[in-house]
Amino acid sequence: MIAWKNYDTLQASQKLAGLKDHVNLQKAMAGESGAQRVEKYAVNMAAGLSYHYAAKQVDDEVLQALKELAQEAQLTEKYEALYNGEMINTGEKRLVLHQLTRGQLGADVIADNVNKREFYVQQQEKAAAFARKVHAGEIKNAAGEAFTTVVQIGIGGSDLGPRAMYIALENWAKRNGCQRMEAKFISNVDPDDAASVLKSIDVSRSLFVLVSKSGTTLETLTNEAFVKNALKEAGLDPSRHMVAVTSETSPIAHSSDYLEAFFMDDYIGGRYSSTSCVGGVILSLAFGPEVFARFLNGAAEEDALAANPDPLQNPDLLDALIGVYERNVQGYPATAVLPYSQALSRFPAHLQQLDMESNGKSVNRFGEKVDYVTGPVIFGEPGTNGQHSFYQLLHQGTDIVPLQFVGFRKNQAGMDVDIQGSTSQQKLCANVAAQIMAFACGKEDANPNKSFAGGRPSSIIIGEELCPEALGALLAHFENKVMFQGFIWNLNSFDQEGVQLGKVLAKRVLAHETDGALKAFSDLLGI
Amino acid sequence: MIAWKNYDTLQASQKLAGLKDHVNLQKAMAGESGAQRVEKYAVNMAAGLSYHYAAKQVDDEVLQALKELAQEAQLTEKYEALYNGEMINTGEKRLVLHQLTRGQLGADVIADNVNKREFYVQQQEKAAAFARKVHAGEIKNAAGEAFTTVVQIGIGGSDLGPRAMYIALENWAKRNGCQRMEAKFISNVDPDDAASVLKSIDVSRSLFVLVSKSGTTLETLTNEAFVKNALKEAGLDPSRHMVAVTSETSPIAHSSDYLEAFFMDDYIGGRYSSTSCVGGVILSLAFGPEVFARFLNGAAEEDALAANPDPLQNPDLLDALIGVYERNVQGYPATAVLPYSQALSRFPAHLQQLDMESNGKSVNRFGEKVDYVTGPVIFGEPGTNGQHSFYQLLHQGTDIVPLQFVGFRKNQAGMDVDIQGSTSQQKLCANVAAQIMAFACGKEDANPNKSFAGGRPSSIIIGEELCPEALGALLAHFENKVMFQGFIWNLNSFDQEGVQLGKVLAKRVLAHETDGALKAFSDLLGI
Repeated sequence: MIAWKNYDTLQASQKLAGLKDHVNLQKAMAGESGAQRVEKYAVNMAAGLSYHYAAKQVDDEVLQALKELAQEAQLTEKYEALYNGEMINTGEKRLVLHQLTRGQLGADVIADNVNKREFYVQQQEKAAAFARKVHAGEIKNAAGEAFTTVVQIGIGGSDLGPRAMYIALENWAKRNGCQRMEAKFISNVDPDDAASVLKSIDVSRSLFVLVSKSGTTLETLTNEAFVKNALKEAGLDPSRHMVAVTSETSPIAHSSDYLEAFFMDDYIGGRYSSTSCVGGVILSLAFGPEVFARFLNGAAEEDALAANPDPLQNPDLLDALIGVYERNVQGYPATAVLPYSQALSRFPAHLQQLDMESNGKSVNRFGEKVDYVTGPVIFGEPGTNGQHSFYQLLHQGTDIVPLQFVGFRKNQAGMDVDIQGSTSQQKLCANVAAQIMAFACGKEDANPNKSFAGGRPSSIIIGEELCPEALGALLAHFENKVMFQGFIWNLNSFDQEGVQLGKVLAKRVLAHETDGALKAFSDLLGI
Repeated sequence: MIAWKNYDTLQASQKLAGLKDHVNLQKAMAGESGAQRVEKYAVNMAAGLSYHYAAKQVDDEVLQALKELAQEAQLTEKYEALYNGEMINTGEKRLVLHQLTRGQLGADVIADNVNKREFYVQQQEKAAAFARKVHAGEIKNAAGEAFTTVVQIGIGGSDLGPRAMYIALENWAKRNGCQRMEAKFISNVDPDDAASVLKSIDVSRSLFVLVSKSGTTLETLTNEAFVKNALKEAGLDPSRHMVAVTSETSPIAHSSDYLEAFFMDDYIGGRYSSTSCVGGVILSLAFGPEVFARFLNGAAEEDALAANPDPLQNPDLLDALIGVYERNVQGYPATAVLPYSQALSRFPAHLQQLDMESNGKSVNRFGEKVDYVTGPVIFGEPGTNGQHSFYQLLHQGTDIVPLQFVGFRKNQAGMDVDIQGSTSQQKLCANVAAQIMAFACGKEDANPNKSFAGGRPSSIIIGEELCPEALGALLAHFENKVMFQGFIWNLNSFDQEGVQLGKVLAKRVLAHETDGALKAFSDLLGI
């Protein structure tokens, strides 16, 4: 029997509170002790990745308390309930089924009289078949030419995840001969966004993927109209250049305005939709369905690991627990995501949405205000760039910011250069190793301005190369981490009521139904 | 006589501490009171911009206390000392002269036996002359073809600022017929970064701008070697494709490896160098020297405003003071920068460096540990995209994050579409107005999950259009804000000792001179 309890009512949370500042990271990571921690505090992830937490402020005692927290909060049972199709998104009365887009861990999930796994697979196959026809030239433009470019029109979860995934695999695909089409993205209602993308492509040879679950997202429909205008001005028939990704019940699901429609449903939240058709159509078109399938396999393998009740064998659960320790016991307000891979340049922006939109909440799943802090601010940029930028504050600022590094032994493009006795890839990897130690141990100096206090915790995910499977595992790792943290904080991580008020007020501004400060600001902005 | 005192020793800081939670923002911004605040709490910036702080948690009493803080901390006097050439960067024993690259507010500054304003102008003129020759086809490639692309090779301040500025003006320049060359940027030592840029350009028609003040930045020299290899493989002579931006004393200052060298000096920090040759060479090549000159004019005009001792007439000073109130009195750990302009997509990344690298410090300018918090975490993405992402936490999370909006009445590209009775630009502006009010006032709802507490402070900078002058003013505004905050916290905002330790350790890794945890991590990363 699952009990949904607030974090501060759990005995384990009291025990953890007593373990504040329990580990002296500077000492723990020094000398032989440090080497032993690196060996001991690691756990395998899917697709050959591994999660290393030696430089986190934990030891066996803290880990034991975290394990008790996992048990008392019934995290594994709650995950089972989720993947077996219980209504976890209670606010919106919805199941939470994004994992079913890439595998099936539990019982068949039947909803709306449909086997949901079969439904998602069917949509993937439809996307794969469509992509193959485009690649084979069976679907082409009115002039009989092949499509060379695919442009996603979407915002929020319909943009950030798929965009980050595309950028992550673009160089890999080029090197491995599976880049089939170039992909672009239009998201912002700022008309300069669409204008800029349209100027950079040949619209006559472009396919547009309109992504809106409801079929009513104002920004997305506005950008669709923008694109349709451009197609018409070029003498083209928009309906021969557009496909839709939406829910079966949306107004655009069965429209002759689109070459084809691919379906998702209300059980997949936007920020969890990269493995659904929201990511599947554009990634299958860009890289081929086989690459997208490999990406899904990596995610499914990670989902399976997340079912292990032992945190020491479950990287997603462990990462979640350590994050709660840092947030609620150590009191750190932000977390930085720092991939040492240029291909992951937009991965932090995706995680920012995933985490902050899921767990940036003040009421529990019963609508009661909680008395503890929940989701942190998430931000980040790729290393080594960040080292020459905001790392100053991370090293010597007055607040401690926990860090999540990601690194790969091999680069993607296969080009490199040897300078001063090492390759660029070696320099990249040397830097991330060095940073972990600099943050953990610091360095005393007679000049206080050159002193580093250390004691700044980090973890690192290490892989061989950022391939489709590794990317899928990475994505699922963070989705599962955020889910477990939501369970611990007793939140509903799958709604986003906080984005509604702004929409309502914006409509009022556009209808000129405002007064007071809102009217004054609207006047200043020339509306 | 200037006295450098810690923030917590100032009487005004005690007075401010007594004004915690002084303003009820929900009430203040409601109804007629809200409209009055919008009218009253605004101040003009340069280039037609204006700074609006009605939705900040201030009233006349808080503003009076902030004014006293400005006086007691001698902020105007310190700014005067800076632009008159006193040694403000005491740690590195350097003057701080970035403002001289765009104007002269005080006395002639003579250093190294040179009039520094004249020196910077001379370098700008050299860059302008070079750009004109490239545009006129007087400087061309070995095949006699014009250069079409310019690629900056730099990292940190040699990358983030110039890149953000280029993206900010690209659409404006295209529309106004002054886009002369396309610009690209290589920064990360990850070899996939350079590989990706090189694949996207015609190297035979590309000019490369190597930017390194010291001429020894390892990432940048590595990427230069990468590029030279590519040029040689294409049968080209690298020295006909490269220029350098560096200091006169650097090893690359007088080398036949470069077509030309443009000089900056130690008195301009990387993150403050966008208005020096670091930004000037690439922006003059991309948009023409006249556009760069207009950008400098906007910055100079803002610098002049910053000299006004009355915070209510000085947007840079006021923004700084309110930020200190939020950080040290209200206790907020992070600030989000949210431009409602796709052109400013990388402006938050630039501000992240500018702010966090300048003021992310724990010791004062005398090397003594301070007992108060200093620079906050800075992050952000363009609106409306952020609204569909991390705004959930900003609206309903357990921590309050102050917000800095930026909006323009007109878009840059001049293309737009009317949907449901409004243009995209109107929708964009309606959204930012709506967000300010949603954050400030919130909304009660019987369902606590749909309730918004409000009380979340924001300010907005509003302009007519993002043109070169406006961009210059915007850049200088934040540079000056960060400078004033550094003065208040008694920091040296112009060094960055926190980035050194990582460099030292990385070299040790590459030399295989490691043991303990550093060796263990290096092994895991395959070095």
